[in-house]
Amino acid sequence: MQCYAPSFLRAIEELNKLPGIGPKSAEKLGSFLLKMDDESFHQFMEAIEDMKHKVRRCSQCFHLTESELCGVCSDSSRKKHQICIVEESRDLISIEKTGIYHGLYHVLQGVLKPVEGVNADKIRIKELMKRLEQEPIEEVIMATNLTYEGELTALYLARELKAFSVKVTRIASGLPMGSDLEFADQLTIKSAFKGRESMKMEDDSCEDS
Amino acid sequence: MQCYAPSFLRAIEELNKLPGIGPKSAEKLGSFLLKMDDESFHQFMEAIEDMKHKVRRCSQCFHLTESELCGVCSDSSRKKHQICIVEESRDLISIEKTGIYHGLYHVLQGVLKPVEGVNADKIRIKELMKRLEQEPIEEVIMATNLTYEGELTALYLARELKAFSVKVTRIASGLPMGSDLEFADQLTIKSAFKGRESMKMEDDSCEDS
Repeated sequence: MQCYAPSFLRAIEELNKLPGIGPKSAEKLGSFLLKMDDESFHQFMEAIEDMKHKVRRCSQCFHLTESELCGVCSDSSRKKHQICIVEESRDLISIEKTGIYHGLYHVLQGVLKPVEGVNADKIRIKELMKRLEQEPIEEVIMATNLTYEGELTALYLARELKAFSVKVTRIASGLPMGSDLEFADQLTIKSAFKGRESMKMEDDSCEDS
Repeated sequence: MQCYAPSFLRAIEELNKLPGIGPKSAEKLGSFLLKMDDESFHQFMEAIEDMKHKVRRCSQCFHLTESELCGVCSDSSRKKHQICIVEESRDLISIEKTGIYHGLYHVLQGVLKPVEGVNADKIRIKELMKRLEQEPIEEVIMATNLTYEGELTALYLARELKAFSVKVTRIASGLPMGSDLEFADQLTIKSAFKGRESMKMEDDSCEDS
C-alpha cells in the first residue's frame, strides 16, 4: 500500500528509532512536525543541530558541557576531596537539584552490562582511576542506580578502589520518603532493615564524617 | 541551577513541545540524539527536513502527498461516486489498510471544536462543498471518530449536505470485534442495539446498495 508520501514514511521510520517512540507515536510526531509553522520548525531543528554541535563531555568528569570543564568541575567552591560516581548526566542533575552534595562527580556514561558485552573498558572507569591517582580524593560515593547493573558496577568499582587509600561509600537503600511498608517490595524492606541507623537529631548535610 | 549546557537545555525545551513528550522524555530524547553517531544523526535530521520540504496536501482530498494529487485521488480504479470523510490522514491510512473501501476520501484536517473556537471555516468543509458541486458524488460516508467532536462534525456535515442530492451514511458504532459485552460501556452497548442488523450471509465489501 503506497498511501503515505515516501518522505513522510522515511521521517516516521527515523522518529520510530528514538527511545520510547513506537510507530503510532512516530506518526503523531511526524504529523505534528508537518503542521508546525515554518518558524517554529526552524527553531526546533536549529536547537537540536545546535546542541549536537556545541555539547561535549567535560574533560574531567564527563558531564555534559559546552566548555572544556563543566559547571561543577570549574566551580572553585566545590569540595575537591569527595567524588560521586553516577551512571549518566541526568543522575548528576537529580543530585544537584537536591543541594545535598557539594563535592565533585564522575559520570561513567553507562553501567557494566556483562550480558550485552558492556565491560569496564566501555565506560569511564580508566578515567576514574586516573583521577584518583592525580586528585586529592578522600571519599568515593557510589551513586549508581539501585538496579542489578548499578549494584554490579558499584561492587566492581569498590573492589578496584581497594588499591587506593580512599573511603568508599554507597548511597543508602531503603523505603522512599512518603511510602508505605505495605506496598514496598521485599528486597527494599530487607535493605531498609539492614541499613537501619540509630536515631540522632543531626543536621541535614552530606559532610564527610 | 546552571547544571546543564545551555544548548542542551534549549533542545530539551524544544523536544518538550512535541505531543506526548514530557520533560523527562525530552531529556531522554536529547541524550539519545547526543549519543547518536554523526551519520545516523545526519540521516535523522535530513529525513525530517526532507519531509517538511516535500510533503504537501493533495489539492483534491487534502491527504498527505508529494505530488499535486495523492495516491488515492490519482488512482483511476477508485470509485468516483463515493467519498469518505475522515478527520486526519492517519484515519485514511487506517481505512486503506483494511481494503474494505474503494472510493475517494476527503480529509477535514480536524474536527469542529466549538469550545476551542475551531468552527467550520477552520477545517476543510468549504472544499468538501465545492467537491460535491463539481464531482459526480452519490454517497458521502462519515468516518469521523466516534468521539463527541467527531459525532458533532458528522451531524453538522449531514445537515449541510441536505442541500445536495447525495446519500449520507455514518460508519456503524457497536462493540469492537473480539470484545466482551461485560466490559463494554453503556453508550456502546446502546449503540450496538440500535444499530442491529438482520443476519444475512453476504459478501464482505462496502459497495453502495
